[in-house]
Amino acid sequence: MAADKVILAYSGGLDTSCILKWLLEQQYEVICVMADVGQKEDFEAARQKALKIGAQQVVVADVKESFVQHYIWPAIQMGLVYEERYLLGTSLARPCISVALVEAAKQHGAKYLAHGATGKGNDQVRFELSAYALQPDLKIIAPWRDVEFCRRFQGRQDLIAYAQAHGIEVTAKPATPWSTDANMLHISYESGVLEDPNIVAPSSLYELTLDPLTQAPQRATRVCIHFEHGLPTSVEDAANKRVYNTPLEMLTFLNELGGSYGIGRIDIVENRYVGLKSRGVYETPGGTILRAAHQDLEVFSLDREVLRTKQLLRDRMSDYVYNGFWFSPEALYVRRCIELAEQQVSGQVTIELLPGYCRVIARKAADAVGSLYNKQLVSMDEHGGYVPQDAGGFIAINAVRIREHVRAFGPYPTYK
Amino acid sequence: MAADKVILAYSGGLDTSCILKWLLEQQYEVICVMADVGQKEDFEAARQKALKIGAQQVVVADVKESFVQHYIWPAIQMGLVYEERYLLGTSLARPCISVALVEAAKQHGAKYLAHGATGKGNDQVRFELSAYALQPDLKIIAPWRDVEFCRRFQGRQDLIAYAQAHGIEVTAKPATPWSTDANMLHISYESGVLEDPNIVAPSSLYELTLDPLTQAPQRATRVCIHFEHGLPTSVEDAANKRVYNTPLEMLTFLNELGGSYGIGRIDIVENRYVGLKSRGVYETPGGTILRAAHQDLEVFSLDREVLRTKQLLRDRMSDYVYNGFWFSPEALYVRRCIELAEQQVSGQVTIELLPGYCRVIARKAADAVGSLYNKQLVSMDEHGGYVPQDAGGFIAINAVRIREHVRAFGPYPTYK
Amino acid sequence: MAADKVILAYSGGLDTSCILKWLLEQQYEVICVMADVGQKEDFEAARQKALKIGAQQVVVADVKESFVQHYIWPAIQMGLVYEERYLLGTSLARPCISVALVEAAKQHGAKYLAHGATGKGNDQVRFELSAYALQPDLKIIAPWRDVEFCRRFQGRQDLIAYAQAHGIEVTAKPATPWSTDANMLHISYESGVLEDPNIVAPSSLYELTLDPLTQAPQRATRVCIHFEHGLPTSVEDAANKRVYNTPLEMLTFLNELGGSYGIGRIDIVENRYVGLKSRGVYETPGGTILRAAHQDLEVFSLDREVLRTKQLLRDRMSDYVYNGFWFSPEALYVRRCIELAEQQVSGQVTIELLPGYCRVIARKAADAVGSLYNKQLVSMDEHGGYVPQDAGGFIAINAVRIREHVRAFGPYPTYK
Amino acid sequence: MAADKVILAYSGGLDTSCILKWLLEQQYEVICVMADVGQKEDFEAARQKALKIGAQQVVVADVKESFVQHYIWPAIQMGLVYEERYLLGTSLARPCISVALVEAAKQHGAKYLAHGATGKGNDQVRFELSAYALQPDLKIIAPWRDVEFCRRFQGRQDLIAYAQAHGIEVTAKPATPWSTDANMLHISYESGVLEDPNIVAPSSLYELTLDPLTQAPQRATRVCIHFEHGLPTSVEDAANKRVYNTPLEMLTFLNELGGSYGIGRIDIVENRYVGLKSRGVYETPGGTILRAAHQDLEVFSLDREVLRTKQLLRDRMSDYVYNGFWFSPEALYVRRCIELAEQQVSGQVTIELLPGYCRVIARKAADAVGSLYNKQLVSMDEHGGYVPQDAGGFIAINAVRIREHVRAFGPYPTYK
Repeated sequence: MAADKVILAYSGGLDTSCILKWLLEQQYEVICVMADVGQKEDFEAARQKALKIGAQQVVVADVKESFVQHYIWPAIQMGLVYEERYLLGTSLARPCISVALVEAAKQHGAKYLAHGATGKGNDQVRFELSAYALQPDLKIIAPWRDVEFCRRFQGRQDLIAYAQAHGIEVTAKPATPWSTDANMLHISYESGVLEDPNIVAPSSLYELTLDPLTQAPQRATRVCIHFEHGLPTSVEDAANKRVYNTPLEMLTFLNELGGSYGIGRIDIVENRYVGLKSRGVYETPGGTILRAAHQDLEVFSLDREVLRTKQLLRDRMSDYVYNGFWFSPEALYVRRCIELAEQQVSGQVTIELLPGYCRVIARKAADAVGSLYNKQLVSMDEHGGYVPQDAGGFIAINAVRIREHVRAFGPYPTYK
Repeated sequence: MAADKVILAYSGGLDTSCILKWLLEQQYEVICVMADVGQKEDFEAARQKALKIGAQQVVVADVKESFVQHYIWPAIQMGLVYEERYLLGTSLARPCISVALVEAAKQHGAKYLAHGATGKGNDQVRFELSAYALQPDLKIIAPWRDVEFCRRFQGRQDLIAYAQAHGIEVTAKPATPWSTDANMLHISYESGVLEDPNIVAPSSLYELTLDPLTQAPQRATRVCIHFEHGLPTSVEDAANKRVYNTPLEMLTFLNELGGSYGIGRIDIVENRYVGLKSRGVYETPGGTILRAAHQDLEVFSLDREVLRTKQLLRDRMSDYVYNGFWFSPEALYVRRCIELAEQQVSGQVTIELLPGYCRVIARKAADAVGSLYNKQLVSMDEHGGYVPQDAGGFIAINAVRIREHVRAFGPYPTYK
Repeated sequence: MAADKVILAYSGGLDTSCILKWLLEQQYEVICVMADVGQKEDFEAARQKALKIGAQQVVVADVKESFVQHYIWPAIQMGLVYEERYLLGTSLARPCISVALVEAAKQHGAKYLAHGATGKGNDQVRFELSAYALQPDLKIIAPWRDVEFCRRFQGRQDLIAYAQAHGIEVTAKPATPWSTDANMLHISYESGVLEDPNIVAPSSLYELTLDPLTQAPQRATRVCIHFEHGLPTSVEDAANKRVYNTPLEMLTFLNELGGSYGIGRIDIVENRYVGLKSRGVYETPGGTILRAAHQDLEVFSLDREVLRTKQLLRDRMSDYVYNGFWFSPEALYVRRCIELAEQQVSGQVTIELLPGYCRVIARKAADAVGSLYNKQLVSMDEHGGYVPQDAGGFIAINAVRIREHVRAFGPYPTYK
Repeated sequence: MAADKVILAYSGGLDTSCILKWLLEQQYEVICVMADVGQKEDFEAARQKALKIGAQQVVVADVKESFVQHYIWPAIQMGLVYEERYLLGTSLARPCISVALVEAAKQHGAKYLAHGATGKGNDQVRFELSAYALQPDLKIIAPWRDVEFCRRFQGRQDLIAYAQAHGIEVTAKPATPWSTDANMLHISYESGVLEDPNIVAPSSLYELTLDPLTQAPQRATRVCIHFEHGLPTSVEDAANKRVYNTPLEMLTFLNELGGSYGIGRIDIVENRYVGLKSRGVYETPGGTILRAAHQDLEVFSLDREVLRTKQLLRDRMSDYVYNGFWFSPEALYVRRCIELAEQQVSGQVTIELLPGYCRVIARKAADAVGSLYNKQLVSMDEHGGYVPQDAGGFIAINAVRIREHVRAFGPYPTYK
């Protein structure tokens, strides 16, 4: 009888290498899949390592372009942000990687999907919900939730011992006292020394951004970002007029420029879907710039009440994506609703980059479309069709409820 | 027959000086009220000017302490921010000033309240709704909505001519090509050259903050802010261990330190309540630091689902305050609801100040209270009562709806 | 010089007849427009009356079909209901009538639009916002807000005297001690004896529905309503298998059948947009049946989380429509979002009609589409792919936050 | 070694009797707890049965009063309703029963809690989340999620066989082809023949309400319900002036009277928390009357904008309660917020009862408190302080955004 096939989300690291070996011990046939979402990784070395351990096959799927175009760009368009600060770098990568994993499963007729995500984290949820959505009958193997596996591997030392015992190469460089996740949008840092939220993160931790004070250029520079229907369509480097046009080029450029300025570092405590609070440090240089630009253009472009509804939908969508529901009825629906609103978000935004942060300084609507910003209407020097006298009635009618409350229930407290 | 008494919200500037004279021409008896909310103003000179023009009396009400304690502090506690960026500096001052105006009206038995706010702006709404709430039978005189007045004064030149004709002193220094509003929380700039939202604001405009690149100290510094029930209770300057304890001292210190670092500048287009979009530039140094700290501690302290509801209430309250409904049934109610949530927001936050921006780097709960952050629970190295195996069931049940959607309506689109 | 032309929303009643005359006195040239939205009215008699008073022309626009198809049907599809009870009969008619008024204005080159709505009500807002949306430069004449007009006509007696003095026929039948508004969707009653919300409305008031106890058939009957994408597509009378297919036929049939059963009477106090609370009695027989059916099918058809978002949008849209914002950026937007959700609301609902009320008793999805209702999955007798063991983990992970709260803040209060 | 003690939520029925025996077979010491929430049950017979099977002890906890006062009354006060129709009869009973179960566990030092709820339902979630909240270290035994148990008992026949084999009395009367849950607030019916949502529920099913057409009195009657701070404080039977004052008396009376009128039957498909859609039939006579009354008084009493926020909170709370989160940080918080709003909901409502339904016909505020309903203000015959002219400006300013949209993006679609 042929062995059951497993697709393993492989990283080349200690954990998934041991998991690979362990799966082989359980008599599975293992196909390792590495999705290249922009992490700096020696994929070829990892492939060799996996094959040496015993993987039947190793697939490296370059999904960078898809990741930027089909996950990051919509996230910018929708204005997604979790708990008002986290730009969802890891959350967005998970469904993208899952597509590659499920494709491999379909191609190889594998019934199982294995991953190395921990049992306390969000990623297990994101991988598995995505997998169930894309191939509802797929079976999941999550070793870090397996009682047997957890008993065997109670800490990093057990993994190292196991690796050494099975001839699995253990990287020479000592592990950082935190864990990271890197892709085109960001690098995240958590666990280890970061677990005490009152201990300042070591300055040596940052990989994607330079130190704003000591390493960034001590002068401002500008970029001009164009949007169509809420999606970035080009980025111009004002310093040299160079223009970037594809999503991948734009993000790469903004990551490099933003990174050199030390832009996009945050240190937060966030609420995980499984009910824990965890502390994370994130670097998101390009994403931070894109979000600032999009946010500015959106408020500039949308009718106030449309904006209010859109923001409500955005908040829901941010939770869906963080929690792993990228592929879900609600995310499909809310995304289409937001896209409708974004039809009117077209124009350009000028952003100034300074050491450590960026700042929107100018914006205009696309020439071809109308704009709700009306210089005549708002001007102090002309009427522009506005009749100031109307405001008196507007205020008086709005005051009806306010006065009624006093009549019925007495005066408002004036202090507090 | 005695003349009708008017309370005039007086600033000492050209507009309200002309309005004062104009009201006297209409046979009103005018009492000028200046509320000191922290703007840098020569109140004594303004008093003399008003008396010279013919004011019956000039009241200078120092409401700085009340403004900080009863308006800014609650706004920080509630996390108020309009359209995700504007910290409501002007919006908060209006009800505070209105209290002073209405108190004067009550004291002097005045039936009228006059102000110099324009007919296109938010401030007329804020002043008048507050006044109607505090004294429902007060009558408003808004010259800039008066047809006769507007015909007479069609531009600044008409005001200057009128002033000169009536011996009203016109300040020697030329007017800035924008208008400003200053108080303890911020300075705002709008109109004039700022009306084109695609023209970068002149760097000479900023009054409250130094230029981050050329004037701010090129080194980081830290402050530690303590909160109790969501309200700031002390600020410690880490550089010299000095501690500030009263709201007024804390805000003054953070404004000075933050201002010297060039922190808190924004340039936005916002949606006015009367239906216009307008461009504003704001400097809010202390408020920006306080908000960053409060936001961090709040997510750290509150249960996730309580936080979700609180943020919804916060968004509503931000609109209420921006639109002028500080004194309203809905603001009273929502504020009390938010205060309930904030009972659990006590602790301290360490913030790093850098040229142009600030960044939270550490936080902890107050010793005396419990904390929902649970190092044991989130640790990768211990279980802390969490059973990883449970997560599998959690995910599977959450997948029921996701799979049902596929069963009923077919596969999810994977690209887009 | 030619006189200015006015389009007058004419009803044939005392008020608008006097307004017609008054407008003629002001030297306007008046074109009367009557929109037939299903009210029982002798339009020909009204036409003659208007012409006799001096109208230059009288237009009777039969907009019944448009009203049902373009206003009532979308309202059913969207599930609109104001403050959880009022089905928006009058609110929906106003924009529909406004289209007819503005069309007449365009056709006759009229710059003015006059209506007889009072200054305290919602209808003035609905008419005027619709008119401004459809022809932004139209000027409104609202006599009941005109100081001169209001001084002249201080009560019904003044109108009668004026009518008699100008040869305007005053109807012989005494006015009811309340005012009504009738159309295809409902009849509303308010004012007069209804102004005391604690006085029971007289039973003689109801025009559209029979008395459930004494006049309705004392047996149940059934109808089966089909929906496609949330819109009613046919109604079958189970008693005789007759099928109604066009919106107008369906609604006419359900109004008659529902009316004969006394279905759809409500007596409420509602919040007007201008800040007042008012008491209204409504009869909405067909609408009540359609809404019950649609609501049932919607919960049956939509994914739970999609439903949650849709209901939020529905609540917003209900307010927009009640407040007069049918033609507005926000209503356009939210309506399109709701239509997206309704794509999956197709099927049939069986409703039982009983004296005074109706009740959904069965429902099924359209054969051609999928259904999220899964008999196998929910059955107590089979698994249907559901793994009961998963529920334990689901509950345990959901309990993490609940337990953490106890750990941090102590036990939950058990009584209260 | 002493056996582990289990608290078993016992009903006296076949399922929990077999579970009791099965637990004994597993060597547990079992204490049966029956919570009397108003179901019609022969508790003494059930006690004897359990003791005969081998229960160490049987506790019958009469929690009817607590259930009405601490669960149903707050639910009425908060206006809770799930998916707009279900009054949460079962959902509310679960936390109340859980308090009794956990109290027994504490008293007897039991570490385990067992229940007979199925693995596909909501009740397992409600019981267990409540238990975890009240005693975080309690361990749950859910036999219907136990692989071994489920294998042994694959259907009702297996249970009967097991019962007979172990001398457990099997009730003579044949089981209904549906399952029910009864308490002071309602009876629910689901499963069995009800699983096809397009099959009309048999008329023989209803236990709590008479048939409106054939059994109810064919005349109307009235009750007058008083509320204080949103809580019912007395009910007067208008027919005989009898007054009921305690929560238990009031609900008992309304259940009887409402039941005799056949009021409160609904047939719905609802969304279960575990992701399924299920069909349920419910009878809630007293609750339906109380909710109608409360809803009317609430809209009558609350400021419009306060009401909007309260309804949003109510919708969240309804989901919390349905999903089993009665004891949770979010439910605690939102409940306190709603209670704040309800402080102003005091007064009386007159309701007419007719066969099959009830209808609010009059309402007034409590004499001692103010009322936002203002007869003078809304009257067509007096001004009451309202200035109709103000409405023109109110409308014009509200039209600014509407017109701007036309200017920027062209005309609104008039049909659709």
